[in-house]
Amino acid sequence: MNAIVEQQDLKKERILEAAYNRFLHYGYSKTTMNEIASDLSMSKALIYYYFPDKCQLYIAVMRKLADDYIKNFEVNSNTFSCLREAFIFQINTQHEFIVNNYNFFDFFRINEQNLPDLIWEIVDKVHQHERDILIGAINSEVAKGTISPIENTCEIVSLLFEALNGVSVTAQSQKKVVFYDKVHLNKIHQKRLLLAEIFIKGLLY
Amino acid sequence: MNAIVEQQDLKKERILEAAYNRFLHYGYSKTTMNEIASDLSMSKALIYYYFPDKCQLYIAVMRKLADDYIKNFEVNSNTFSCLREAFIFQINTQHEFIVNNYNFFDFFRINEQNLPDLIWEIVDKVHQHERDILIGAINSEVAKGTISPIENTCEIVSLLFEALNGVSVTAQSQKKVVFYDKVHLNKIHQKRLLLAEIFIKGLLY
Repeated sequence: MNAIVEQQDLKKERILEAAYNRFLHYGYSKTTMNEIASDLSMSKALIYYYFPDKCQLYIAVMRKLADDYIKNFEVNSNTFSCLREAFIFQINTQHEFIVNNYNFFDFFRINEQNLPDLIWEIVDKVHQHERDILIGAINSEVAKGTISPIENTCEIVSLLFEALNGVSVTAQSQKKVVFYDKVHLNKIHQKRLLLAEIFIKGLLY
Repeated sequence: MNAIVEQQDLKKERILEAAYNRFLHYGYSKTTMNEIASDLSMSKALIYYYFPDKCQLYIAVMRKLADDYIKNFEVNSNTFSCLREAFIFQINTQHEFIVNNYNFFDFFRINEQNLPDLIWEIVDKVHQHERDILIGAINSEVAKGTISPIENTCEIVSLLFEALNGVSVTAQSQKKVVFYDKVHLNKIHQKRLLLAEIFIKGLLY
């Protein structure tokens, strides 16, 4: 029985891997279940056995990517020597993740205002982990005595996250853009680093 | 000839005033051109002579409100004793303006993602004036020697504006909300004040 489960898990993993490669190189819209099946020399029916449709498959790949992202974050979370390092690491890691997986995220661009709830759940989970690590970084700075104790650390981290999220390249009054093009991503990255520097200085008073 | 123009301007002003009162108390959607005409004991045709439809009338009222808002801002712009005062004034004035005109802005809530370009032009004009005054406040702080010279003051002010604009009461991943309800507006106001305090401390280093 266990052997069957293991084999099924292995097949699922292989499908996720192949789907990720397709989504990454051709984007969500230009990828078909047929192509993924052919990449794996599997029948399309078998893929549908594990994932009822392309959207569900995409969400499963996204979940795997998010878990890897969180793991990477947690591995590094004990190596920060100061608050600044932790915040800059978060901003840089997030930026690189998005740039390196740019085509993969065309799903976000296509569905702008109508992303499935399951996607938001994954995004929220990632943000929660990022927040937890930055809360830890602030608390250890308080323990070191470099910043005065903060009543609600969680609130402060959320505030910075929201502020960073507000950084944009268009006039602030325009519609929210869920996903920017590559040139804009770099500009936003620079602005976020600047905002974080000012914010951290403000905390370190 | 001039007398006719003056009389027309006066009529226009009276229409704008009556429309503002209706929009303020009953909101855009519950106000009709008939009611405005009856408030003024004018014919509906006369109102349509000046404003082709309710939307155009609303935009004209909005433009008048914005001009008053900018005037109030400029009158106070020379009274700030420090950067903090200028920033807090901007945040408080904006908050009070929105709260005091809450029903008037139901137009924004109704049209969330599809506000006419003319509305955005007015909003952008207001923001531009706010930015200019805060740029002046930073520059005079630099002149006083309390903060080190900033390469691009305009960029710094825009950054804070965008950051303030990112402050929300929902998870950051959710859809942008153009207009919050009253309870949320107060929470956002408190968070914006906190963000501005941290940001200013960060600048004053």
